[in-house]
Parts: sequence; C-alpha cells; structure tokens
Amino acid sequence: MIAVIGLGKAGLPLAATIADNGFNVTGVDIDEERCKMINSGSNPIPEESGLDDLISRHGGKKLFATPRYEDAKDCNLFIIIVPLYIDSGHDPDFTIIESAFRSIGKILKRGDIVVLETTVPPTTTENLGKKWLEEESGLRLGDFFLAYSPERIMTGYSISRLREFPKIIGGVDEESGKRAYEIYRMFIPNLFLVSNAKTAEFIKVIEGCYRDINVALANELLKIAEELGVDFYEARQYANHEYCHIHLPSTGVGGHCIPVYPWFLINEMEKRERYGKAKLLRTAREINDDMVNYWAEKILMECMKIDMPLNQVKICIKGITFRESVKELYNSRNFVLAKILMEKGMNVGVYDEMFSAEEIEDLGLLWRLPEEAEVIFDPFALKNVVRSGKTRIE
Amino acid sequence: MIAVIGLGKAGLPLAATIADNGFNVTGVDIDEERCKMINSGSNPIPEESGLDDLISRHGGKKLFATPRYEDAKDCNLFIIIVPLYIDSGHDPDFTIIESAFRSIGKILKRGDIVVLETTVPPTTTENLGKKWLEEESGLRLGDFFLAYSPERIMTGYSISRLREFPKIIGGVDEESGKRAYEIYRMFIPNLFLVSNAKTAEFIKVIEGCYRDINVALANELLKIAEELGVDFYEARQYANHEYCHIHLPSTGVGGHCIPVYPWFLINEMEKRERYGKAKLLRTAREINDDMVNYWAEKILMECMKIDMPLNQVKICIKGITFRESVKELYNSRNFVLAKILMEKGMNVGVYDEMFSAEEIEDLGLLWRLPEEAEVIFDPFALKNVVRSGKTRIE
Repeated sequence: MIAVIGLGKAGLPLAATIADNGFNVTGVDIDEERCKMINSGSNPIPEESGLDDLISRHGGKKLFATPRYEDAKDCNLFIIIVPLYIDSGHDPDFTIIESAFRSIGKILKRGDIVVLETTVPPTTTENLGKKWLEEESGLRLGDFFLAYSPERIMTGYSISRLREFPKIIGGVDEESGKRAYEIYRMFIPNLFLVSNAKTAEFIKVIEGCYRDINVALANELLKIAEELGVDFYEARQYANHEYCHIHLPSTGVGGHCIPVYPWFLINEMEKRERYGKAKLLRTAREINDDMVNYWAEKILMECMKIDMPLNQVKICIKGITFRESVKELYNSRNFVLAKILMEKGMNVGVYDEMFSAEEIEDLGLLWRLPEEAEVIFDPFALKNVVRSGKTRIE
Repeated sequence: MIAVIGLGKAGLPLAATIADNGFNVTGVDIDEERCKMINSGSNPIPEESGLDDLISRHGGKKLFATPRYEDAKDCNLFIIIVPLYIDSGHDPDFTIIESAFRSIGKILKRGDIVVLETTVPPTTTENLGKKWLEEESGLRLGDFFLAYSPERIMTGYSISRLREFPKIIGGVDEESGKRAYEIYRMFIPNLFLVSNAKTAEFIKVIEGCYRDINVALANELLKIAEELGVDFYEARQYANHEYCHIHLPSTGVGGHCIPVYPWFLINEMEKRERYGKAKLLRTAREINDDMVNYWAEKILMECMKIDMPLNQVKICIKGITFRESVKELYNSRNFVLAKILMEKGMNVGVYDEMFSAEEIEDLGLLWRLPEEAEVIFDPFALKNVVRSGKTRIE
C-alpha cells in the first residue's frame, strides 16, 4: 500500500496514476471536503486532462482520500507532495513539509520508504527530512529508507507527464536510492536513478534557474531592442534555431516555481559567504522583478498621449493572474503592476475574465471593463492599446 | 559579377559557394599568396569540409582571387566579409571594415548593391557603411543599395550551413532589402528578408548573447554544485530535456565571436546612459572572464597535495587554444590561464598537440609534455589530474 501526502495539483494526479497502476493508494490531505469529493469519484481539478476518468474509476476504491495519517499506517511507501512557500526574505517556510514528515514519523515502521517530491533547497531531504523522521519514529536511517524524486508536472498535462516524461529519483544513501527506484518503477515508466537525493533536488532547482535566467535575457533584450528601434519579436523569430532558444519577455516571472527556486541557491551561497557564486541568478531575479516598473512607465507614457489630466485617464489592466488562463495569484507580477499604478495615483482598473467584479474588489483593486478604459494593457500580449478619439493632438 | 571582399574562414566558403552556383566571383583579399593559391586551385582552409572540391573546380576560373579592388570594378554586388576586432575597452575597431567600404566606394556604380556580412554593432550598416560609401562614391543611397546579412558559418561546416541553414538579410531601406534579397536568393536557398539592416545585425548579436549568458549560467551552476557536493555533469544530464538546455561549463568563452558580441550592446547602452539595460549581459561576461581565476585556484589546490614546495610542482596545461582542435589563440582563456599561473610564480608549462615547442615558447610560455608534469589540467575536459607517487601523505 502506498500513501500520498498532499492531494493538490501535483499530488492528486500522482495518487490517481499510482492507483491506475493497480496499487491501493491512501491519499492524505487536510481538506476534508476535497477528500469526500475524491472518494465519491468526482475530480476537484477538472482542468487536469485525463484526471476525471481516473478519479471516477478509482476514487473511493483504489484511491482512498482521508485527512487522517492513521489511515495510512499500513502503507510501506510514503510520498510527500505538499506545498512549500517562501517568506518575504526569500527563505523557505518548511512548516507544511515538516508537519508531513513528523506525522509520517509517528506511524513509520521498519522497512518503510519515504520519498519527498516537493521542490526544496538541495540537501533538505538528507538533512531535515531524515532528522524529522528519526526524531518522531525512534528509528534510524537504514531501518527506514528515504529518497527524493522531484515532481515535473505541468498543470493540465500532469498525467501524460507522469506516463512519458523522464523522472528522476535519488536516495539519501545507496540502499534508499535502490529501494525507492525499484518501487517507483512500477508506476513511473521513464525513471532514472541518480547518485543521491541532493543531486535530484539540484536537478529540479536548476531547471527553474535556466528558465528564470532566459526570461531575464529576453526581458533585457526587449529593452535593448526598443532603444535601438528594432522589433524584438521579429528578431527573436529569426535568431532562434537549433542552437538558440531565446525566450519570451514578460511582466516578470510569477507562480510557485520559477521565481522561487533561484533563491534556494542564492540564499544558500550567501549563508556560506559565497555571495559571488550566485550573482547571475540574483541579477536575473532583479531584472524579472523590475519588469513591472518598466511596464508601469510604458503605460504612463501611453496615458500622457491622452488629452486629459494624467490621473484621470482610465487604465485597464486586462489580466491579473501570474499566468494566462490559470486562476492563481501567487507571486503574480500583473497584480503587483496594478498595485504600483494605484500607488502612483493613477486611475487604474482591472479586468480578468476568470474573476468576478467582487473578487477583483476583494483584492483591493478597482474592477473595470476594457471598453470603459482609455488605455488598456494586456500583460499576456505585452501590448498597450490606446483608445483613439481621445488622443492628444500635438 | 559578384565581388566578395575578404577570403578568410567565412569569406572563402561563401565565395566558392557563389561560384558553384554559376556566378563569376572576384574575391578580393590583401593576402597575395593566398590569392595565388586559390587561383591555382588549391584550398588554403583544408579543414573546411567540401571546400577542397569547390576550390579545385572553381579557383582561377569562376572564382578569381585578387588583392586589387580595381579587378572588381565590373561587379554589381559587393559582399564585405572581413574581420572586426575589438580594442581593450571592448570597442570595435572599424579600420578594416571602413577600408573595405571606402575601397568599394571608389569603384561603386549606379545600381550596385553592397552587402555587409561581418558581425557588427546594430546600426553600423545604416550609419557608418552608408556614410563611407556616399563619401567615396559621390553617389547617394538610392543610386546604390545597401544591406546586411550576417554570416552564420561554423568552422568546418560552412558550406553545408550556406546550403541549408536559415540566413537572413535586411536593407538599410526597403528597396535595398528587396534587391539584395532577390540576388542573394540565387545562391542562398534558405533566405529570409527582415524589416531592415539593424534588425539583421541585432539578430546575429543576440544569438551570441544567448550563448554567453547560458555558458555563464553553466559556470555559475558548476561552482554552486561544487559547494553543495553535487556532480554538476550528472545533474545537467538529467536536467536537460525538451524545455531545458543547460550548456557546458568552461574556462571562459574565447574566440572572435561570443565574447565580443555582448559588448556591442553593453557599450551602446552605456553610451546612451542606459547602463541598467544591459546588466545581465555584463554580469555574464564578468562570470565567464573570471573562470580562469577559478581554475587557477583549483589547480593550486591540486598542487598543494604534492609533497614539495608549491612553486616547484610541475604543472602542465594541456591545451592552449580557445576551442578544442582549432589552432587559434584569439581571446583564448586557456592562454590567459597559463599566464595567470606564471604570474603567481607557479612552475607552469603548456602542451598542445597543434603547436610545436618553439611555437609555445614564442608565446612566452614554457613547453612541457604532460608526462613530465605532476599536475595536469585539461581545459577541454575541465579535469585536474594529479600524478600519483608524489602525493603528500597526510
């Protein structure tokens, strides 16, 4: 029997996939309503392709969801896939992960295997995870086994990713790696065993760093192209080929993943007084975070073309989420952009087809239809639209 | 008739390819011996795949090489593909390009087309090239036509690149773009017309920036992996997939291209007092240039393991060129690494199978066989090898 701790966007597709491979799965999640829903065969994440089918077939049968760890006490493999947040100093807040490890520790038996899937700073599994389990269980590593295997899901495509995309796993010691690999292989067809847990942790983090750096490069080149009077998008189209992958510019990088992971390495290097060893990662973070100021200035410049007092020009930010078509505001730079314009005293409203007027207002923002604005900014097209008719005549 | 100015590594394959498409080509190069060689049908760049055949078939016939611009006076298309160097302040030295433009200007006729292929800072063609041609010819743009089409060769594969790889061209005005595109199409099958010359210039430069940034990322991640006790190469292997292209680390970035191009943009932004708009490019350059100090320290640490006074340990740097298997020292960071170790008072020698002992010594370095050294550093494998037997017993 296999336990999956955390039935969120990453955990539920994994739990369902394991159940679909013939295993009995106990899914543990603090959300009692969500558990009931799953056990009745209905899918709480309908946007996840293929998940409806898996939940309707296995929910309440091979996949039993519960808010109680005790219900998982007969399991021999425990997979932790819960969120990790970072605080305002970019340090990870381990509260949820620690709680999951300690709760497992309380029911851990000799021979059990624990695998962490949440993206964490390298060495978390071998240092913290091991300690938490040992403290609660009274057992020692070797009595139980501990490994790390990063989730590599992509919202909407998680199930096909689990079936096809290469996945890696590494143990905190050799025996842990081997045992975790052998059991994971039974439900992950494309699995690779790496040297150790911290290598697997590092692999996940550097994928995010690659993205962040390359988005920062796109943002920097966009600004330089503008200075030179060159159309960045045209240039990008012809620059990209087999050996060149210039990314798309943006209002910054949001969400739980990419803007968070570089800090794992930056903070670790700073703790070790190796500040200079992460300066590219830090510069990229600064560039991406600063893009909201760049776009705020661009929007202001557009407003100045309208023949009325600047703070009366009605602006509409058309899109408030961190990514297009995902109703999620965590680290959303588009939300920050709206706030910045408000703080500048501009008359800024927000429209997002995924949010009601009330939801927008609950966020402390003004709701406004695009057709009621003089200047519209679409963060997903990176376009300013200035309404004609009111344009200042110069 | 078509003139190609510059018969070097980029120019000669282009001239030969044009001749092979049935055109009469006049190749202009200051090197008289090289011209004679080409006209006798023998290839001065034997490492260039397929060039032997083209030169033996067309040299002295369809491809006539000459040191005199007057011999090209009946041509209607002039292609400039000469080197551009940068000075110690990272500013381009336009001497050679200016001389080529002015020499063409002296023989330029109404209706002629001039195309620059050398990689240059964006706006060079529209600002400098146009001015030089107008000053010398007495004609005005519109009487003649001017465009830019960056070379995208790769030493060894230039001819297949010209036949297959996408190539772009852009005019300093619309008519120039159209006319240059129409004639280039006759010998470049995979050709794209872009909005203008500066877009084409920008495209070439940002390809180099992408490479430089991503090598800097690899170098930074290598250092962080080392701090964490993770094998970077193993991590890279599993991190890379369809959406992730982490590059290889190195002793820095050498040669005429990649380390030079980012400065075109950095310097331009600084001239405009837009320093902050190129800070990622600048940070990447600094990281890559600093790698020689990182490796020098690593080599020193290896030397300390040998039981003899530090400055007596015989070091061998096995490889001195900027790239493996290319006998070229321009911007070679491996050469700089050897010099740094010398300046530190270390007993450093150099071995490179492409150089004789005399050639190494003419460079102010000590020649040494790897088997005579206690510590060997291979910059192309990024490996320190410490000879056993003399290892300090601790």
